[in-house]
Amino acid sequence: MAKIRLNAISTLAPEKASKKEYLEMTQKLAAEIGIMSEMLYASKKHSVLVVLQGMDASGKDGVTKNVFSDCPALCIDAHAFKKPTEEEMAHDFLWRVHRYSPAKGLIKIFIRSHYEDVLIQRVHKWIDDRRAAMRMDAINHYERLLVEDNGTLILKFYLHLSRERQLEKLEERRVVPEKQWKYNPGDFEESKRWDDYRKCYEDAINKSEIPWHIVPADKRWYRNYFVADVVHRELKKLDLAYPTLPDGG
Amino acid sequence: MAKIRLNAISTLAPEKASKKEYLEMTQKLAAEIGIMSEMLYASKKHSVLVVLQGMDASGKDGVTKNVFSDCPALCIDAHAFKKPTEEEMAHDFLWRVHRYSPAKGLIKIFIRSHYEDVLIQRVHKWIDDRRAAMRMDAINHYERLLVEDNGTLILKFYLHLSRERQLEKLEERRVVPEKQWKYNPGDFEESKRWDDYRKCYEDAINKSEIPWHIVPADKRWYRNYFVADVVHRELKKLDLAYPTLPDGG
Repeated sequence: MAKIRLNAISTLAPEKASKKEYLEMTQKLAAEIGIMSEMLYASKKHSVLVVLQGMDASGKDGVTKNVFSDCPALCIDAHAFKKPTEEEMAHDFLWRVHRYSPAKGLIKIFIRSHYEDVLIQRVHKWIDDRRAAMRMDAINHYERLLVEDNGTLILKFYLHLSRERQLEKLEERRVVPEKQWKYNPGDFEESKRWDDYRKCYEDAINKSEIPWHIVPADKRWYRNYFVADVVHRELKKLDLAYPTLPDGG
Repeated sequence: MAKIRLNAISTLAPEKASKKEYLEMTQKLAAEIGIMSEMLYASKKHSVLVVLQGMDASGKDGVTKNVFSDCPALCIDAHAFKKPTEEEMAHDFLWRVHRYSPAKGLIKIFIRSHYEDVLIQRVHKWIDDRRAAMRMDAINHYERLLVEDNGTLILKFYLHLSRERQLEKLEERRVVPEKQWKYNPGDFEESKRWDDYRKCYEDAINKSEIPWHIVPADKRWYRNYFVADVVHRELKKLDLAYPTLPDGG
């Protein structure tokens, strides 16, 4: 498989349709995703794991909110991985991740994920390259286990933002009252390590057995449409239906 | 590595020492294991996973009780894996296992373990050979993760009992009042599948990356001594000590 180079991929929305059209398409897709999530829950044959990764302010929460807006709460669950606790640190890096993997019938969204353990930890040199390589191997085997032993559909998205757009969005968080709850001055510091993060992302993406979707993320409306379109298409392939009684009831 | 054939390995105690001598040696080893378990807890650099497998009545509970008798409760934990719950069945087979893996500083005893998923499930043909092979691969990668990412010492014991001795011990459970809480008429039925279990055990043992200790288990006192000796020797290698203050306090 050809290696991905993030700098060679646009972060912008294509001009195939207008913003208004993309918003309408997203809404329609989200409605159908909502119905399929209930069918998934009712039939309990598969589980779905959606992994959202991307630089700060790339829109992980926004995707969660907009793409899965019509999924009943019973059928979906989002987990945001934060700084590991003391108990989590006393175990292998996948320990805290594995326990949140989706049961049959559920869609689970990972806002950040096991990939942080080969990203932030590597950028800050808390682990060396050898350990990072070992972890990538463990990640591939963990994901294979979910697929092969539990029929999990794994959908991984890298929300691909430009640095300029990131700095705009971080600044928004500082000045817009409804966004200030997300403001963290440390994000500007972390942003200076942009190139290190990009390299670690590229390495993780290129060493993943299950491929990533690279999502142009500078425009919120196109980013949401892109993810909704992939999720919709992949759920369709599961050929979901409400299970009915054998004799028609 | 030469393949293990269980039928070629004795289930009896050697005559190197008397029963009384073995009992005394075990007591001494258990006392030192107790001290080392507290050092392990105090220094929190390693964790220890003890896997106990064997046919019904081979003495998994007995080993737990006798070998680890001097470990403070804070430093040790035993988990007996039973029939999976509905929630556990809705996940991959390692999901319920991984969550019980030991934190740094702890000794965890698995009474039955992830190996059941390639034993009872295979003997009863709930999974096919292809699935069993995939699971063995997943088991090896899971164990490697614990070792490489969390410094876990994994000690696996197969309690090797003869069928004749098993039937005697199952009968004891039927007639001795203090043992009747363990009596399960289904065990006699399961015992008829002895050869199938033996073949699946051999396959799992031979496909394990981390080697097993095969414990002659017909005599309780020798079985306990054998396990205590291995645990003691392997803990010694960790070179444990109580951490002291840098300047001597």
